[in-house]
Amino acid sequence: MSAVVSLLLGGARSGKSAFGENLVKISGLKPVYLATARGLDGEMVERIELHRARREASTGAKWETVEEPLALADALQNCAYSGHMVLVDCLTLWVSNLMEAGANVEREAANLVQSLDGLQAPVVFVANEVGLGIVPDNALAREFRDLAGLVNQKIAARADEVFFIAAGLPLIMKSKD
Amino acid sequence: MSAVVSLLLGGARSGKSAFGENLVKISGLKPVYLATARGLDGEMVERIELHRARREASTGAKWETVEEPLALADALQNCAYSGHMVLVDCLTLWVSNLMEAGANVEREAANLVQSLDGLQAPVVFVANEVGLGIVPDNALAREFRDLAGLVNQKIAARADEVFFIAAGLPLIMKSKD
Amino acid sequence: MSAVVSLLLGGARSGKSAFGENLVKISGLKPVYLATARGLDGEMVERIELHRARREASTGAKWETVEEPLALADALQNCAYSGHMVLVDCLTLWVSNLMEAGANVEREAANLVQSLDGLQAPVVFVANEVGLGIVPDNALAREFRDLAGLVNQKIAARADEVFFIAAGLPLIMKSKD
Repeated sequence: MSAVVSLLLGGARSGKSAFGENLVKISGLKPVYLATARGLDGEMVERIELHRARREASTGAKWETVEEPLALADALQNCAYSGHMVLVDCLTLWVSNLMEAGANVEREAANLVQSLDGLQAPVVFVANEVGLGIVPDNALAREFRDLAGLVNQKIAARADEVFFIAAGLPLIMKSKD
Repeated sequence: MSAVVSLLLGGARSGKSAFGENLVKISGLKPVYLATARGLDGEMVERIELHRARREASTGAKWETVEEPLALADALQNCAYSGHMVLVDCLTLWVSNLMEAGANVEREAANLVQSLDGLQAPVVFVANEVGLGIVPDNALAREFRDLAGLVNQKIAARADEVFFIAAGLPLIMKSKD
Repeated sequence: MSAVVSLLLGGARSGKSAFGENLVKISGLKPVYLATARGLDGEMVERIELHRARREASTGAKWETVEEPLALADALQNCAYSGHMVLVDCLTLWVSNLMEAGANVEREAANLVQSLDGLQAPVVFVANEVGLGIVPDNALAREFRDLAGLVNQKIAARADEVFFIAAGLPLIMKSKD
């Protein structure tokens, strides 16, 4: 039997990361934070630091942190030890990283889904829903929007539970009970 | 008694079309696809073909296809035969087409709603929710966003069931049961 | 005991204001409309007038109207008399106004939340969810999106009931029952 897979979908500043941190905290398992962000520019470095501080403060726990912008399935295999729980934050940045690297996003997503079978630790994926505004002007943004949506669908189909988060509150889209 | 009217709201790549195709498939009725898209540019032609292939493959059925970018109420009357079920994909492109043609969108939407009374076949409308990003810079995009939202409200008020779709999963907003 | 605080989250043209007006109408209390909009440009003046006409027509009531773009907590104290119910429309314009005025949005939001304790009248906040599109190009829009989301989270955490509105229909995110 595989460990439980959860997906948290939401917009920017929807409170989805904090909701995920709390899911990990209340599990009582050892918390692992798998970040897909790369601290390349100032705005992102600042955001990563804020996340880290908030995570430690709000959960009162010491998180093991792993950073992997591209090889997510491998990184997950390497940190999903028994007795742990992994928060992957976030899938949508991963899609963006893969696009920049010229990778085949759909194939990578299929690999990721397959890698979830047999994991020893529960995993919570955080993902942005980015398709609810007007159609972006430029083709690259449209492609990103399409791929992010497709990856969300693939993970949602595999997940045991899915929540849509807005203003810090969850709507249950799929329940493991 | 009129046939059941359903509305599927969702973002880009939310899986709303596939969800609608499945609703039609499980009905056991003869499937009709009423497309509002016009295959004018390369990106759109490709997307229409992908939709068609996916539809045939996933439902294992031969769909009758009708294309009507503007006169949606008439087209619906002409294909909603008894024993059939119609998937209208999508309302939001129809709004865009009407705007381009200089039509009065609110009046056309009122006509469409009125035309639903007495239809012989159940209808599933697919629509984009486009108002959940930041305010667009240009006035035309703001007008489009306003009109798309108003049309969604009108159809939702008339519909027997409404789902909000994200990552392929439904949230029930209005239920016919 | 404090009066009930409600929050209505939704996109542009989601029907959230009309939903809020109806909540006030069915309460039987005297309706107060607390507008945060400033009628500076033509588009906004027109929108404010449309809102006013729709409000009076659909609720069949005479609303007391208060306009306050910045000092929302004070304005709320001054109009939340016993026997009344206040519709604040909307929080997201207030965030925008505060940013333009160079105010500390997070501090103002904390003040607003604190001011809700001991109010004599129920309050319904209308707010835009603006974080579900792709990341905006310009930094100011990203900051606005972040602050609007944070304010929504703060009010949602304090509110007794929260609804997500799309196409005029509510999804219950938090319930007072």
